[in-house]
Amino acid sequence: MDRDAILLTPGPLTTTLRTKLAMLRDWGSWDADFVALTAELRRALLAIVHGEGSHVVVPLQGSGTFAVEAAVATVVPRDGHMLVLDNGAYCKRLGRLATLMGRRTTIMAQPEDQAVSPEALDAKLREDASITHVGFIHCETGTGVLNPLAAVAAVCAHHGKGLIIDAMSSFGALPVDAREISFDALVAASGKCLEGVPGMGFVFIRQAVLAGCEGRSHSLAMDLFDQHVYMQKTGQWRFTPPTHVVAALAEAVRQFDEEGGRPARLARYTENCRALLDGMAALGFRPFLPPALQAPIIVTFHAPSDPAFEFKSFYDAVKRRGFILYPGKLTQLETFRVGCIGAIGANEMRQAVQAIGEAMRELGLNA
Amino acid sequence: MDRDAILLTPGPLTTTLRTKLAMLRDWGSWDADFVALTAELRRALLAIVHGEGSHVVVPLQGSGTFAVEAAVATVVPRDGHMLVLDNGAYCKRLGRLATLMGRRTTIMAQPEDQAVSPEALDAKLREDASITHVGFIHCETGTGVLNPLAAVAAVCAHHGKGLIIDAMSSFGALPVDAREISFDALVAASGKCLEGVPGMGFVFIRQAVLAGCEGRSHSLAMDLFDQHVYMQKTGQWRFTPPTHVVAALAEAVRQFDEEGGRPARLARYTENCRALLDGMAALGFRPFLPPALQAPIIVTFHAPSDPAFEFKSFYDAVKRRGFILYPGKLTQLETFRVGCIGAIGANEMRQAVQAIGEAMRELGLNA
Repeated sequence: MDRDAILLTPGPLTTTLRTKLAMLRDWGSWDADFVALTAELRRALLAIVHGEGSHVVVPLQGSGTFAVEAAVATVVPRDGHMLVLDNGAYCKRLGRLATLMGRRTTIMAQPEDQAVSPEALDAKLREDASITHVGFIHCETGTGVLNPLAAVAAVCAHHGKGLIIDAMSSFGALPVDAREISFDALVAASGKCLEGVPGMGFVFIRQAVLAGCEGRSHSLAMDLFDQHVYMQKTGQWRFTPPTHVVAALAEAVRQFDEEGGRPARLARYTENCRALLDGMAALGFRPFLPPALQAPIIVTFHAPSDPAFEFKSFYDAVKRRGFILYPGKLTQLETFRVGCIGAIGANEMRQAVQAIGEAMRELGLNA
Repeated sequence: MDRDAILLTPGPLTTTLRTKLAMLRDWGSWDADFVALTAELRRALLAIVHGEGSHVVVPLQGSGTFAVEAAVATVVPRDGHMLVLDNGAYCKRLGRLATLMGRRTTIMAQPEDQAVSPEALDAKLREDASITHVGFIHCETGTGVLNPLAAVAAVCAHHGKGLIIDAMSSFGALPVDAREISFDALVAASGKCLEGVPGMGFVFIRQAVLAGCEGRSHSLAMDLFDQHVYMQKTGQWRFTPPTHVVAALAEAVRQFDEEGGRPARLARYTENCRALLDGMAALGFRPFLPPALQAPIIVTFHAPSDPAFEFKSFYDAVKRRGFILYPGKLTQLETFRVGCIGAIGANEMRQAVQAIGEAMRELGLNA
C-alpha cells in the first residue's frame, strides 16, 4: 500500500500530521507575524534547558552540522585550542570541521563501544594547559552510546575550560539543565527529538561568553554573534530563514510542551527503546552496546551472522512492510541501526520488530 | 479575514498549494526514494541552464547566502583574488563574505541607480593582473537593477578570469544559457523564481573548474567539492538534507516545466511587473530605476513625499488588505520594494495596487 513509511532513523524522522500541516502557509520573513513566531520558538527552546538569564539561543539555517560548525567558529577564538573527545563518527566530524576552519584541534581517541572517560579528560587537561575548549558529543549517533555529560562538564568547569556540547540527537529527550551543567555552547537541530522537520539548527550560548565572540567567525553565514545581534535588534533572521521549517518546529514544540515536555518525551523514547530491545532479542538480534551505555535514541545491532545476510535486501524487505531502517556506521563490524525517536510509540516499535521478523523469514535468514 | 496574505517579497514568496502539499510526507534521507528525488531535481535544475555536459549542480542546505559563501569558498583558491562589481546591498554582502573567509577581495563601487559597467570591468582587469575571479550579481535585489550578464561574462572570458554569478533572484526567470555564457559558478536558491520554499541553495559549477576545487574550502559544511563527490558516489547529501524543502522544490520545478519553463515564467513576471508599474504610476508613485534597468523581479519605489508618510503604518494598512510589501534597502533615500515574483499573476498585482491605493486614502497620504 502507498502509505507513508515509519522512519526509524535518527532524523529526519516521523513527524505528526499537525507538524507537517503547519507548513501549509507562506510567511513573509520580515513580517511581524514571523518575528513573533521566531521569538516564541526561541523562548520555548531556552525554557527546555532552563537557560533563561544565563544563555541565549541562536537559530541557524542549514543542517545540524552547520550549527556545530558555527558554534565552534563563533565560540573558539582563532588562537584557541579545542580538545575533541572522540568515540565515534560524529566526534570525528567535529574534529574535522574544527581543523578545517583553522582552529588548533587535538583528537583524544577512545573506544567506540565505551563512553568517553572524564578521568582521561581530567588527565589530558592537567597535561596540556594550552587547551581552551572541549568538544563533546552527548549521544554519539554513530553507535548510540550515551556519553557522561555531567561528569565531563564538571571536569571542564574545574579546569576553567569552555565546553561545546553537540546534543544533536539528545536534546529534548535526555536531561540538560543549564542551571546545573556548565557549558559555553550546546548545539541541536529541528529534526531530532523535538520532532520537527530538518532544515535548521540552534545553538545555546552562555551570555558571558557571547560578548567576547565578535569577529571570531571566518564565515559570514555561520557567525552566530552576528546572527544574535541582528536578531536582538530586529527580531528577524539575518538571511532568509527556512520559514516553513521554522513554523513546523514551533508547532512541534507546542506539542512537545503539551505532551509533558522533556521528561515525557524521554519516557516515551525509553519505552520505545525497551520494546525494540526486547523484541529484537526475541528474534535473536544482539545490540552492539551494553545496556548501561545505551541511550534510548538509536540502537546499533550486530548484523545477523548468517553469511547470506546482505543489508540492502534486508532493508528493502523491511521497507516493503512500512519501516525505514538506518545503516550502521562502524567500519570494523557489520551493523545496522534502528532509531527510537520521532512521533512514534511502543506500538510502532513492536510492529517494526514484527516487520523485521517477517523480513528475516522471507529472506530465509537467521539472526 | 484570516486568509493567507500574498507575499510581494523577493523570497520567501507565495507558493502554490501543490508545492506546499508536497511537504506533507516524511522522507528517509538515506532511502532510495529520496535519492531518486534528489537526482530528478538536479537533472531538472541543470536543464534550466542547459548545463548538461559542461556543468554540475550541487545543492546545499541553508539560505541562498550560504550557497554564495560556499561557491566562493569552493571555487576561489585561497591565494586567489576576487573582484566584486558592487552596485548594491547584495554585492556588498558578497564582498564581505569573501573578505571574512580570507580571500583577497577588491570591491569596485558603482552607482546604485546604474547597471555595473563591463567597460569599467575591462579596464580594471587590464590594470590589475592579479585578479583571478569576478563576483557579479545578476539582479541586484537591493534596488531591482538588471546587470549586464552577457557583456560581463564576455569580458571575463576575454581576460581568462573566473566568473561567479549570484543569480539568486533571477534564476528561472531571466535567461542564462551555459552554452552561451561562460561562468565558473552560478548560485541560486529554492525560494525565489522557481517558487519553492526557502531552505536550500544550489550552485552550478563548471566541470573543468570543479576538479581543481578539492581542499579549497575552509568550511566542512560549505565544501561543495566534497558535497558533490559524496553525492556522485552515494546519491545522498553529506549531511541531513532539508527533506521537506527538497520535496517542495522538486514539485515546484515540475510546475515550472508544465507552465512552459523559463520563458513562460519570465513572461508572467514581465506582465506582473508591467501591471505593477502602470498601476503605481496611476497612483502617483515613482520607480527608483529607469525602465531600461528594471528587472521584472522586484521594483523599488520612492516613498511618498508626503511628510506624514511612515513605512510601518503604510505596510500595516496594505497588510490588512492581504498583501505583504518589502522595505527599501537604500541608505540615502526613503524607498520601499514590491516583488513581482511568486505564484501570482497580473490579477494579484492589480489587486495589490488597489490595496496600496486604499491604504494611502485610509492614511490620508498623497504619493
